[in-house]
Amino acid sequence: MAENDSLSDFLASAIDAAKRAGEVIRKGFYQTKHVEHKGVVDLVTETDKTCEDLIFSHLKQLYPTHKFIGEETSAAFGTVDLTDEPTWIVDPLDGTTNFVHGFPFMCVSIGLTIGKVPTVGVVYNPIMDELFTGIRGKGAFLNGNPIKASSQTELVKSLLATEAGTKRDKLTLDASTNRINSLLSKVRSIRMCGSCALNLCGIACGRLDLFFEIGFGGPWDVAGGAVIVQEAGGVVYDPSGKDFDITAQRVAASNPFVKDAFVEVLRQSE
Amino acid sequence: MAENDSLSDFLASAIDAAKRAGEVIRKGFYQTKHVEHKGVVDLVTETDKTCEDLIFSHLKQLYPTHKFIGEETSAAFGTVDLTDEPTWIVDPLDGTTNFVHGFPFMCVSIGLTIGKVPTVGVVYNPIMDELFTGIRGKGAFLNGNPIKASSQTELVKSLLATEAGTKRDKLTLDASTNRINSLLSKVRSIRMCGSCALNLCGIACGRLDLFFEIGFGGPWDVAGGAVIVQEAGGVVYDPSGKDFDITAQRVAASNPFVKDAFVEVLRQSE
Repeated sequence: MAENDSLSDFLASAIDAAKRAGEVIRKGFYQTKHVEHKGVVDLVTETDKTCEDLIFSHLKQLYPTHKFIGEETSAAFGTVDLTDEPTWIVDPLDGTTNFVHGFPFMCVSIGLTIGKVPTVGVVYNPIMDELFTGIRGKGAFLNGNPIKASSQTELVKSLLATEAGTKRDKLTLDASTNRINSLLSKVRSIRMCGSCALNLCGIACGRLDLFFEIGFGGPWDVAGGAVIVQEAGGVVYDPSGKDFDITAQRVAASNPFVKDAFVEVLRQSE
Repeated sequence: MAENDSLSDFLASAIDAAKRAGEVIRKGFYQTKHVEHKGVVDLVTETDKTCEDLIFSHLKQLYPTHKFIGEETSAAFGTVDLTDEPTWIVDPLDGTTNFVHGFPFMCVSIGLTIGKVPTVGVVYNPIMDELFTGIRGKGAFLNGNPIKASSQTELVKSLLATEAGTKRDKLTLDASTNRINSLLSKVRSIRMCGSCALNLCGIACGRLDLFFEIGFGGPWDVAGGAVIVQEAGGVVYDPSGKDFDITAQRVAASNPFVKDAFVEVLRQSE
């Protein structure tokens, strides 16, 4: 089987898995308003776990020699051991806070790295029924239509996305709001919608011009979106301007034109 | 004609107008990616103007004795002269930055005040096809289904929404990021999605627990959403805790249970 054929097969399998998991999320989403709080927490855990099991069992059956890294299973063990082997990196439900609150911004994120390089990506928002896909060298798509990153060249006209993250110690909080302060004086406006993977897809389809997040959960938040951004003509990098490291819990993304100016502001606000 | 009948008629007319305007926005939304920048700005102005004309001419024909306040027409004159007369207050396109960038979070907002009290409200997101409606004393609805504000009683479990606004002077920016800093240490997370009227509707349907914004455009941002929040069991007030003033360009909204705690944190961060 030619390499491109197998990449297409990988993508098709990932889409299949994402849509099945999306169905579980969609059902849970419309239930969250009708259960007690304890129940909602249980529902999140249950939905997360059900979706990860569903995606992993689907892909493991098809690709028994591949490696697997998932938020639910890996997060428990701390470190992430990424090798050169084909590795599926999965966030079964990115945007759990939104899921709990019924805010319609969440997704399944599935990425495949080969030689540690993000090669196939699927990010599916089951509530808005938006399916973002990408294969390295083969372009990026939203519901089957080609997408591309914005052509914005000026920070002042750029729409920035970031997230507040989950750490609430004073040091992290001050650093985070200082960065927001510096950036707000330079960009058009800021969006915080609660899903790292969907922010990456926002860059890929040009809805957003700039995105950065520091201190998110793990590679499962970025593995699917990274290749989609790159295939849409965008760039993914460390907020310092250095190369993107999928295991570093630090990411920035934009089109190539505003990258230098964005990195400069991010550095000034460190 | 009984009062309730006429309020229902007013609502039906407003829905009709909002859906027609929504159609114009939807068409423009899918064009923004295909026009040059100058063209996008023209497209915003044109869409805004077309929608306001469409809504006003529809409602003026039906209710020739009513008063009308619109973002497009009134903004040009500065002050807003709200009287006790039945007054339609319209934002033809709330979320213009999102419209320009193709970020799917925007709406038509139509509110009717009688005796200065928000009495009928329609907020329609034409991209996600979500229609929020409310009549004073008659409940609030999303696509025809009853909605209610969240039952959250703890700030630490609350999802907060706010917006960065458009002012970028250092004083405003510092005040704004200081408030975000204080609030982030107390709440679960923060969302900034770019539409005041949709934030109010987020409170009304329980997707969001807390919302405040200071220094937005005018009464057209809140006239439609205010009655929807109130009819969903939520409360709308000044961020200081005082009574809501529709002309003050200051708003906070939540369920009644977290109001005092929310106001306390907002006051501390003044």
